[in-house]
Amino acid sequence: MQNELAHRLARLRTALGSHQIDAALVGPSADFRYLTGHPASESERLTVLVVPREGECTLLVPELESPKFTDFPFGRLDRWRDGDDPIDLLARRLLDLDARTIGVNDEFRAGFLLPLQERLTGRRFARISPLIQELRIVKSPAELSLLREAIARVDAAWARFCAEGRLVGRTERQVARQLSEFLLEEGLDEVAFCIVASGPNAASPHHEPGDRIIQDGDPVVIDIGGPYQGYYADMTRTPVAGTIRDPDFAVAYEAVLEAQQAAFAAMRPGVPCEEIDRIARDVLATHGLAEAFTHRLGHGLGLSVHEPPYLVRGNRAPLRPGMVVTDEPGVYLAGRWGVRIEDVVVITEEGTERLTRSPHDLLALP
Amino acid sequence: MQNELAHRLARLRTALGSHQIDAALVGPSADFRYLTGHPASESERLTVLVVPREGECTLLVPELESPKFTDFPFGRLDRWRDGDDPIDLLARRLLDLDARTIGVNDEFRAGFLLPLQERLTGRRFARISPLIQELRIVKSPAELSLLREAIARVDAAWARFCAEGRLVGRTERQVARQLSEFLLEEGLDEVAFCIVASGPNAASPHHEPGDRIIQDGDPVVIDIGGPYQGYYADMTRTPVAGTIRDPDFAVAYEAVLEAQQAAFAAMRPGVPCEEIDRIARDVLATHGLAEAFTHRLGHGLGLSVHEPPYLVRGNRAPLRPGMVVTDEPGVYLAGRWGVRIEDVVVITEEGTERLTRSPHDLLALP
Repeated sequence: MQNELAHRLARLRTALGSHQIDAALVGPSADFRYLTGHPASESERLTVLVVPREGECTLLVPELESPKFTDFPFGRLDRWRDGDDPIDLLARRLLDLDARTIGVNDEFRAGFLLPLQERLTGRRFARISPLIQELRIVKSPAELSLLREAIARVDAAWARFCAEGRLVGRTERQVARQLSEFLLEEGLDEVAFCIVASGPNAASPHHEPGDRIIQDGDPVVIDIGGPYQGYYADMTRTPVAGTIRDPDFAVAYEAVLEAQQAAFAAMRPGVPCEEIDRIARDVLATHGLAEAFTHRLGHGLGLSVHEPPYLVRGNRAPLRPGMVVTDEPGVYLAGRWGVRIEDVVVITEEGTERLTRSPHDLLALP
Repeated sequence: MQNELAHRLARLRTALGSHQIDAALVGPSADFRYLTGHPASESERLTVLVVPREGECTLLVPELESPKFTDFPFGRLDRWRDGDDPIDLLARRLLDLDARTIGVNDEFRAGFLLPLQERLTGRRFARISPLIQELRIVKSPAELSLLREAIARVDAAWARFCAEGRLVGRTERQVARQLSEFLLEEGLDEVAFCIVASGPNAASPHHEPGDRIIQDGDPVVIDIGGPYQGYYADMTRTPVAGTIRDPDFAVAYEAVLEAQQAAFAAMRPGVPCEEIDRIARDVLATHGLAEAFTHRLGHGLGLSVHEPPYLVRGNRAPLRPGMVVTDEPGVYLAGRWGVRIEDVVVITEEGTERLTRSPHDLLALP
């Protein structure tokens, strides 16, 4: 792992050089974990990794978080105490480095950035995450095996739910609680999301599970996932509670599945991301459902649950071996129901491998 | 609730006027929930509330999140679709408003702010959260009753753990799982944190529960909490697993409790926040433990788990009725153990009321 971290840092420095960025600031985020091997808590207390183009890094951390970082191998660990002014410490470090162009990770807070810009007038600030994401976008063998572990755990939790779970007569929240327990018992680090959206609620792609009691005949969009050792799984299935009653739903389900499979079949190195999105969209259009597909087809998956590459209109970047993406078309009809089917796929030299193993068939659960 | 939201918005606009800010941008955060009544997902997709000093607000949201906001009462709901450029939409809205000085909430992402600054050169960007926090810092009766609900739930979960829980021979993670279940069963929205730090791990104030098996004689710092309808509870207790063996620990425990009680006794309207912190610190100093107290005494609590007022060196602002703060001194000895005792307190006209009801005595749990 230490070797892999050193390699990542070296690649980032090469990228800093070729983009004329003098130093990168990386606060708590997947970028931070990628570079340091550690998660860090996002909070009102400043934690930031400073990577100069050359020379030793600085990890500036609140004293009470510092015991987690004592093994930081790439430079100085600078602790600050509550009551100190960490922005001043950071500004002084950047002045020492004579950094003229400063890269900042995407999740870095405006509450830190704005006072820093005020302290360092005349410096240029630029996004650094696109450069780090370019490193993260192709997964190493070690990363791929963690993704496989995460996804296998979600598959196992889903299989248990299909065997033991009940939908009809229970609230969305109760179903979400049970699914969450299964996910934790299978060994995810945490449940990052557990969407249970039933009946008309399923028409809202990111519905929060609530107190609605699931009725016989309701389609239920179930979108679950979380990290294993930091690497995310993400899967959606749309079973029906009890008896499948609405023939329109069954037709839409088959259309979504057809779109999902067409996209999967088209994935291989060299194909532009937007092309995969378009292929799924075209299938839904032939069923008159294009307008009901209100989001992009998919996203990359790794230390973030959403990361490049995005399978979306306008993204002409080609797929490459080692990229890991979701394939998740959906159809949402306001006031009625929704359906989404989501798998995770890795792009290989030869084409693709589907990492999600859970079956796709339209399922009725009691 | 609609009245309270309208009142908050009116107060924010008054503050914008007196600080010569033309428009406020508020992304997903406690500030956002305070102003809209809704949580919003922090993600790579831009969601932002635009509050001009006068005229209607705009809520710019990703299409797939928009079903949650159809009841937005203060202006226009602008949906954007994957593949659109939301920064361009936001910049155009700000140009329409002719906003010269633009306020941005603290959690707003650099990944959105930097390209917005590039699009709108010559505009001034400033932190807006201090103004919103000034509104949030004194709780309304409705907010106080939600905080009471949240804290009562944590008290109840802790009482269950004291009655049924076991420490010796279990891993930190197992204990955290059981505590989390109790917290959810008592009705918290989610478990936001569940620190279980045993033996030497307890010397790290924000330790993540791991696979260490808790030994007889270990002090265990347990810091639990989460929101109820968005409002956070936060409590820490430090029981000992099995038998209390280290007499130094028992002495330190009493010192921390004495510091905690001295701080509580000193709280009342008009006393500067830093003074309360100093009082706790002075008590620990008389026990030779000043250096081991490595963090501020406490923080405000509301829609965020950490928010103003901070009880910390340098904060001269006086306590006011309706403020809600934690009182949480701690002592951390690297390689040995730690102890922290944390309650939530509301400042009243007369002085204080302790919201946390769980007892303080040094407890040995099996």
